[in-house]
Amino acid sequence: MSNCIVGIDLGGTNLKAGIVDTGGRILHRLSIKTNSSADPQTISNQILELIAETIRSAQIKESDVAGIGLGSPGLVDKTGETILFSPNLPRWRNIPIKRIVSERFSKPCVLENDANAAAWGEKWVGAGKEAKSLVMLTLGTGVGGGIVIDNKLWRGANNVAAEIGHMVIQTDGPPCKCGNRGCVEVYASATGMVRRFKELFDSGAPSSLKNSGEITARMINDAAIQGDKVSLDVIEETGRYLGIALINIMHVLNPEMIVLAGGMIGSGELLMNPISVLPRKGHLRHHIRIRRLCFRSLGTMRGL
Amino acid sequence: MSNCIVGIDLGGTNLKAGIVDTGGRILHRLSIKTNSSADPQTISNQILELIAETIRSAQIKESDVAGIGLGSPGLVDKTGETILFSPNLPRWRNIPIKRIVSERFSKPCVLENDANAAAWGEKWVGAGKEAKSLVMLTLGTGVGGGIVIDNKLWRGANNVAAEIGHMVIQTDGPPCKCGNRGCVEVYASATGMVRRFKELFDSGAPSSLKNSGEITARMINDAAIQGDKVSLDVIEETGRYLGIALINIMHVLNPEMIVLAGGMIGSGELLMNPISVLPRKGHLRHHIRIRRLCFRSLGTMRGL
Repeated sequence: MSNCIVGIDLGGTNLKAGIVDTGGRILHRLSIKTNSSADPQTISNQILELIAETIRSAQIKESDVAGIGLGSPGLVDKTGETILFSPNLPRWRNIPIKRIVSERFSKPCVLENDANAAAWGEKWVGAGKEAKSLVMLTLGTGVGGGIVIDNKLWRGANNVAAEIGHMVIQTDGPPCKCGNRGCVEVYASATGMVRRFKELFDSGAPSSLKNSGEITARMINDAAIQGDKVSLDVIEETGRYLGIALINIMHVLNPEMIVLAGGMIGSGELLMNPISVLPRKGHLRHHIRIRRLCFRSLGTMRGL
Repeated sequence: MSNCIVGIDLGGTNLKAGIVDTGGRILHRLSIKTNSSADPQTISNQILELIAETIRSAQIKESDVAGIGLGSPGLVDKTGETILFSPNLPRWRNIPIKRIVSERFSKPCVLENDANAAAWGEKWVGAGKEAKSLVMLTLGTGVGGGIVIDNKLWRGANNVAAEIGHMVIQTDGPPCKCGNRGCVEVYASATGMVRRFKELFDSGAPSSLKNSGEITARMINDAAIQGDKVSLDVIEETGRYLGIALINIMHVLNPEMIVLAGGMIGSGELLMNPISVLPRKGHLRHHIRIRRLCFRSLGTMRGL
């Protein structure tokens, strides 16, 4: 009986695979480094090999697999066939990955934006199981989003909705890769945290990280836990900006629940406390319900 | 045969009434000044009298009226029975206006937030007739919003969605009545235009309006048409901030259409040109579709 589904999370850093049963339980996981600078053909082959290897290492048969789900950052075309553009895989453009995977394994295949898939996963079997509407934010290198309204994923008229990371919260803020200024992602992503740390550091603020070479969000987080003042300030500021993003989501969509996930959530209360300050002071404070997920590398899987 | 509907737009300045047929055509209009500082009982009576007078002056019978629609600014409770709070009618709190109207006329009555009603009106018989999703912005003393998704009005989990005017676009901006800072309404409302004009004027910018006493958005608009530099700058700045609001709506919801309406739209191209600049430069430029409505005092009616 075909009662397993293979899910692939196509990330710029890692290609993650998982096998879930029809109830959404994760049975098996596998992760490899993405060869992100490779040509599309090479990455496609990497994906095909990863799927085969995941099935092998889970000790199931290909005939046990009912279908394959692919979550990709960036824009997926309206028909759900092709990745149009993925910011973290710059050479990956107009690739009909759904057809490639579907033909190789002779299985139905679904291609979805990764944050949409994650939102749907939380709606299906996760934090938002009982919510009719939710907004999911995935906080990592960038800030992704997914929207569920009336028990359905809302992809937008052109499949580009839920780009919460590119909501402008500071009109004259620093430039964003998208062409605008002061987007949520500029402040509230791992990349934004590193940028802000460097700004403060270059302006002479003393930090225990000063001799550590290449700075990462994880290093800032670890230093903050050790009490490093600049790192604490950066996380607090990141949280405040995220709070503004949540206020805007509340005002525009008033979802039953906002779900926060992604690597940055590892900062725990250091980040969560400042996130909550502004939304809980506002006039919609009675209506805001925030759920924090621990980092779940297979969050996306469950949505596919 | 009951084939008429009475619609009431409960505004802080005017109480507007209209009669529409079942196809949404406006057959008759009437408007009176709102006694906004009066007690709820007096305003309720004003509404009841306006409905009766509208029916009389349209030369129809009460039995021709199938139902009555009420559009109110502010918060309507989840059951659609009561106006909880209306910023422009400060004494108007927790009034079960739906029941009051329904009982007096023995007709079914619908109570809806005014911008939601306007959005639904445009979806029903207006600019958005063929759009499956749209966001409506009503630009006046404040900035209201309404959202249609998948051919349905989206009111949010607690009936407070589409408060586009309270989306923060400048985290450290001027304070807003809602308790946050830098909301769309602070910049892109008639009130915001007057505030900004006064700021520039007080900083010494010369304007032809200097001896005109109490400044209104209409005066700024008229002065701009005559070439007054400060007034032109204020309208241009207002337009740019509105452009940011549209970018955010695009990124969060990606509706098929954004409809702009309300008194401020009277500024015409002076306002519309700067509104379009930023959205049309961004990476979603191919997806943005803006419809500008002339000011239609009975926009709300048609949504009820």
